[in-house]
Amino acid sequence: MRERNDLDIFFAPRRVAVVGATANKAKGGYNILANMLESFAGPVYPVNPGRDEILGARCYPSLRELAGKVDLAIVFVPAEAVPGVLEDCVAAGVQAAVIESGGFAEVGERGREITRRCQEIAARGNLRLWGPNCTGLVCTDPFIFTPFMRAPDAHKRLDPGNLGIIAQSGMLAAGFMFQYVLSGFFKVSKACAIGNKMDVDEVDVLDYISKDDRTKAVVAYLESINRGSEFLEVARAMRGRKPLAVLKGGRYEEAARAALSHTASMAGSDEVVEGALRQAGVVRVHDFHDLMNLGKAFSLHPGPFRLTSPRGDGVAVVTITGGGGVVTTDLLRDSGLSVPVLEERTLKGLAEVFPAWMPPSNPVDIWPAIEQRGPAVFSETLREVLADDRVDGVILLPFASRLLEIYPFEEIGKIKRESGKAVVSWVFGDLRFFVEYETRMREHGIPVFIDLRSCVLALRAYLHFSRLARETSAAG
Amino acid sequence: MRERNDLDIFFAPRRVAVVGATANKAKGGYNILANMLESFAGPVYPVNPGRDEILGARCYPSLRELAGKVDLAIVFVPAEAVPGVLEDCVAAGVQAAVIESGGFAEVGERGREITRRCQEIAARGNLRLWGPNCTGLVCTDPFIFTPFMRAPDAHKRLDPGNLGIIAQSGMLAAGFMFQYVLSGFFKVSKACAIGNKMDVDEVDVLDYISKDDRTKAVVAYLESINRGSEFLEVARAMRGRKPLAVLKGGRYEEAARAALSHTASMAGSDEVVEGALRQAGVVRVHDFHDLMNLGKAFSLHPGPFRLTSPRGDGVAVVTITGGGGVVTTDLLRDSGLSVPVLEERTLKGLAEVFPAWMPPSNPVDIWPAIEQRGPAVFSETLREVLADDRVDGVILLPFASRLLEIYPFEEIGKIKRESGKAVVSWVFGDLRFFVEYETRMREHGIPVFIDLRSCVLALRAYLHFSRLARETSAAG
Repeated sequence: MRERNDLDIFFAPRRVAVVGATANKAKGGYNILANMLESFAGPVYPVNPGRDEILGARCYPSLRELAGKVDLAIVFVPAEAVPGVLEDCVAAGVQAAVIESGGFAEVGERGREITRRCQEIAARGNLRLWGPNCTGLVCTDPFIFTPFMRAPDAHKRLDPGNLGIIAQSGMLAAGFMFQYVLSGFFKVSKACAIGNKMDVDEVDVLDYISKDDRTKAVVAYLESINRGSEFLEVARAMRGRKPLAVLKGGRYEEAARAALSHTASMAGSDEVVEGALRQAGVVRVHDFHDLMNLGKAFSLHPGPFRLTSPRGDGVAVVTITGGGGVVTTDLLRDSGLSVPVLEERTLKGLAEVFPAWMPPSNPVDIWPAIEQRGPAVFSETLREVLADDRVDGVILLPFASRLLEIYPFEEIGKIKRESGKAVVSWVFGDLRFFVEYETRMREHGIPVFIDLRSCVLALRAYLHFSRLARETSAAG
Repeated sequence: MRERNDLDIFFAPRRVAVVGATANKAKGGYNILANMLESFAGPVYPVNPGRDEILGARCYPSLRELAGKVDLAIVFVPAEAVPGVLEDCVAAGVQAAVIESGGFAEVGERGREITRRCQEIAARGNLRLWGPNCTGLVCTDPFIFTPFMRAPDAHKRLDPGNLGIIAQSGMLAAGFMFQYVLSGFFKVSKACAIGNKMDVDEVDVLDYISKDDRTKAVVAYLESINRGSEFLEVARAMRGRKPLAVLKGGRYEEAARAALSHTASMAGSDEVVEGALRQAGVVRVHDFHDLMNLGKAFSLHPGPFRLTSPRGDGVAVVTITGGGGVVTTDLLRDSGLSVPVLEERTLKGLAEVFPAWMPPSNPVDIWPAIEQRGPAVFSETLREVLADDRVDGVILLPFASRLLEIYPFEEIGKIKRESGKAVVSWVFGDLRFFVEYETRMREHGIPVFIDLRSCVLALRAYLHFSRLARETSAAG
């Protein structure tokens, strides 16, 4: 590991300058400043030679006027101007710069030349660089929000969470910020858009947040893994301790070419990547939607679950729809999980809730029992199957309707907690009941998805990580 | 083909009785009656020996009192009482019965015995049976809505559409009705929940709706295909004429067992099913979410698209995010589609919209161009790539933000229509802009999805069907 992995200066600076701040609300330089002024606890200094004041803050012509007053500079000026800004950083004693501007190595030889100059200046001046061509970073505690998209009241909307995100694409990171973070889809500790990785790269960031106490799980979108062996070293150190899911783009030649022009990334052979990630226990996915859904699952429950079956892959499906049970079983088997025959004592217990004509089996089709006894059957059934040693996790399939008004949320949460086992849920039916259902289940740490595939993906990841944790604890 | 495929009597009866109607709002028999009284154009007669009147309609003690007055009976009484009701049907000259009750072959020998008696009565009395253990059917023109879930003003909410749905599971069919049909996710011609298939089966229904002028595409969830060769005969007759997508549950032994207890279905060998479906040109999927998304895509554009590449599988990705382009390219290649190098003339045309430092390629990353020239770049780029003979379809990746307020929707719709080629879109970013974006794109027949995988699935299905149509038209 290189010795330059202490990134505290990015995540917890005391005093920040925004270079390229502007009063033009259509520009990113305005958004960065507005976000920072509103949400950052310490002093924030706009830097722009053409203005005396922006948003009520005194504006400085250059960082040099702020010598000794700034730890971190957020830079959003044209690429050609960046080397000069970095010289100013060094002269002013700034320790780190987040460069959000594009136009660097991704745009050809001219940009690569600028990149080399920036790297030289930084190495000479002991200055750490983040980016360029990215939205920078977000940390919820202490709070800092650098993206160039305006996010009013970000500090009030972003409750501290335990998920770390790494994304090597500015636009995606910005989109995910709105869609998943600001919307409450999951709660983050740190979100990092690393862009072209002129200095700080995926290894530095992953190493840093994997050791961060507030970060309990990490999801990462990467277009390249430049320092492969060091990345795997960090990933292996997380194995069984903190879940890590990775979407690595550029698996095919056509996509790898695109990655090169996008963030100047060499994608590398995918077979090598695949094998290495598997060996390190990383969960790999191929769509952003999947990555974000795993983020949701792990942010709700980043720790390992209790496993009771020898292989740790046994799933019971508790379903209000026979058809849903059939299709879920197929998908579970596709993904390598098993759908075991339940233990005798479980079947006996279930027989007491089931109508006489319907012998229970797995998937556990509870509709006839619900018709007779109401939604309490959900929790009664869940208790039975979670007590089954062949069952390591459960997928619940309810029907969104007025039935949910008398759904035993509290009881389900209690049973789940006491069992220590993994539970995920699908929801289908009347859309008006979806938000309430998801919100209530989320309070009990149960992720809800609107497609079965995502349920299976999340449960597979939960059990995979729990098995790694079991191995790790047995080994150590 | 058996001679019993004229199902008009189910979809367009003149006079209907509801047997098992009740005034108890918690019961399905109430919901069926309330839905039918509200939405059916002809007379609707409640049948219940214990009541004189329900919901303002005169109630009859038995179908026999309605001799000659009823074409179709909707039956929702306990399984044991169904044979008697069917005897009444025959005696009263009823031509067809939709049996929604459960408790038949799916519950064991007793239920199988009832099934046999029902089949005997029906065969003797020339009575067609639909179900049991299902929600029956929906037809939007003429309007009939039989499900036992209450759906107020269904006739006002369900605009006639061109999609046919077949689902062999009552609860799922009911859920899908709420989630996808009543919500406007897609517009249906006919939705059929066929349950245990005591008489009318998947072959009858598929044959009927494949010949229905109002139905232009079909999606089907099946747990069994009992008359395999006849099913394939119908599917082959649709090949290249009407798109057909199938989710066939019970691919693994554990799931097949569950299907048996659910709808008394023998699932059959999946390898045989897989090969036969492929040969018939059917698109096969493995999750309901995928099936419904294909329903959305085909309901927006059920006809074939114009293909200009020899293999008919060339896709251009027009993206505001480089990372989205990379991952979409990987997913396209996973699914067997190609991401061709664009023609020289296209690259020249694009170079005029692109900044000088950024040579255009495929995926077409338009962000730098948009930064310079605004969102018109979306339509300018789309025009260029759709004119490329190597491109048969396009995936658009915009960013949901205020940028969409000046997005060239009309221009994009016009260019797409004039090209005759397939276009689908992802959307990510600020959730507040999603509904507006989807609504506007839908007006132009462009389906929008929130995951890339679904974009690729829809485009693959569009191009697949278009290739079949090209072959079919070349062959005859």
